[in-house]
Amino acid sequence: MPSPPRSGPLAIIAGAGRLPADIAAEVAARGDAVVVMPLRGLADQRFDGFGGLPVGLLDPAGALAALRQVEASAVVLAGTVAKPGLGVVVAGWQAMRHRDEIRAIMQGGDDNLLRGVVKFLEANGFPVRGVDEVAPGLMARVGPLAGPEPAEAALRDIALGRKALQAIGPLDIGQAVVVAEQRVLAIEAAEGTDAMLRRVATLRQPGLLGRLVRRGRAAIGERGGVMVKAPKPGQDRRVDLPAIGPRTVRLAAAAGLSGIAVEAGGVLLVSRADLVDEAVRRDVFITGLPA
Amino acid sequence: MPSPPRSGPLAIIAGAGRLPADIAAEVAARGDAVVVMPLRGLADQRFDGFGGLPVGLLDPAGALAALRQVEASAVVLAGTVAKPGLGVVVAGWQAMRHRDEIRAIMQGGDDNLLRGVVKFLEANGFPVRGVDEVAPGLMARVGPLAGPEPAEAALRDIALGRKALQAIGPLDIGQAVVVAEQRVLAIEAAEGTDAMLRRVATLRQPGLLGRLVRRGRAAIGERGGVMVKAPKPGQDRRVDLPAIGPRTVRLAAAAGLSGIAVEAGGVLLVSRADLVDEAVRRDVFITGLPA
Repeated sequence: MPSPPRSGPLAIIAGAGRLPADIAAEVAARGDAVVVMPLRGLADQRFDGFGGLPVGLLDPAGALAALRQVEASAVVLAGTVAKPGLGVVVAGWQAMRHRDEIRAIMQGGDDNLLRGVVKFLEANGFPVRGVDEVAPGLMARVGPLAGPEPAEAALRDIALGRKALQAIGPLDIGQAVVVAEQRVLAIEAAEGTDAMLRRVATLRQPGLLGRLVRRGRAAIGERGGVMVKAPKPGQDRRVDLPAIGPRTVRLAAAAGLSGIAVEAGGVLLVSRADLVDEAVRRDVFITGLPA
Repeated sequence: MPSPPRSGPLAIIAGAGRLPADIAAEVAARGDAVVVMPLRGLADQRFDGFGGLPVGLLDPAGALAALRQVEASAVVLAGTVAKPGLGVVVAGWQAMRHRDEIRAIMQGGDDNLLRGVVKFLEANGFPVRGVDEVAPGLMARVGPLAGPEPAEAALRDIALGRKALQAIGPLDIGQAVVVAEQRVLAIEAAEGTDAMLRRVATLRQPGLLGRLVRRGRAAIGERGGVMVKAPKPGQDRRVDLPAIGPRTVRLAAAAGLSGIAVEAGGVLLVSRADLVDEAVRRDVFITGLPA
């Protein structure tokens, strides 16, 4: 049964990477209380000044107890959980003790763990917020964000990319597409943005006679083109917030792209300073499109 | 300047694989004259009974001379040119002698060699036909084509796959999608159907905790789902005819799919006997959808 609203800090349950610390810094900078609860075996940064109890990915009761102890007013889930270390595997054994709660979290036909976690936390009285709500300053804004000015051809490719994303939007497919010379080279579906960019890089390294022939398909130029990324319509941004970071810029450059266009307010800029550095160094533009 | 219609045989300019021979057999079976002109260094089958002069991929004038010699009434381009052997590389040196014609073929803002070849042949008075026109018996027809009966869930996934193809159709993107449990897992763009199926197979072999966590995305089941393949609207089938063959079935099985649905009349069944064998052996259904 949901409890009445609590008056304590915003609690950030933190996976790997610098995002949790960046959120904490922005929340604190505007004078709001914030505490970071690092996920054991996943969080890989120090959270000096925002220190909270560590919590276990597979210990829902422990996380609730920690949130109640600090009287968290709301929760943000942030950071990556893609490459769990040994600690998580060890914690997995503990999960046997919590299997009923975990089963409840995973139930309801929803196979997405994070969505289950959101439901579980809210059912226990802790509203879950998106990064875009609590730290809007970390999101892309409209206009040039880094790197050179987009050329005319790039602007045309961006327009086609947006059209492609709009066409597939109602089908809840992907967040990103790659367009070059007015041709859609790749659409992200379940594989993720990084894998899509790697695919484009591979397509652009044709073998013998590949550029000439390529099984009856149009040859793909080796350079040029853009990636366009935006949230899907109706996407729960607390669970799946589109993001780009320094690695995205490196992969875009390796794919020969001239730039990246993202929907302002809807795409997170991870490690912004490094992202901007990479964009300048690799001559890749980053631009924010009006939502 | 186009010449008047000729009254000779249909000429098949043949790349690798059995398709050129299959076309020749179907044309001959209905009593029409047919000759096969194997591409030097590419064609890898014998064409007993349909023998014609070999032609060079990079020798347009030679191909025209051969077509004039047999007074070809029309031309079909068939077979793959994806893995050219040494012969083609050697022939590439010859191309220096024909560079003006080849430049003409490649001109006009069109970077597709085959489209250039079609224009070149037609401008020289040889109409180019599609495989679907000259050998309709090689195309998928409506209804069950091989393997088991599609389950209810597969029929729903097929319907969503068709919707996805229709959504991206106007954007001239891909011929195929993979759908499982009402979720679009992959859309083919420039990478081709085989690469898309390999990607799905990889997505379904998650690493440690991958099935549980997968960076906030919904986990992908290890089995089930369908591939749907159809021509793009306005696609020139003489240049880019969608096809499935035994390898497609093997890749679909490796990706855990329960079946393949193709647009009847619009998708070629390559090596049909082997395709049906593979479908039965791997328990993958193949079904033809009304166009």
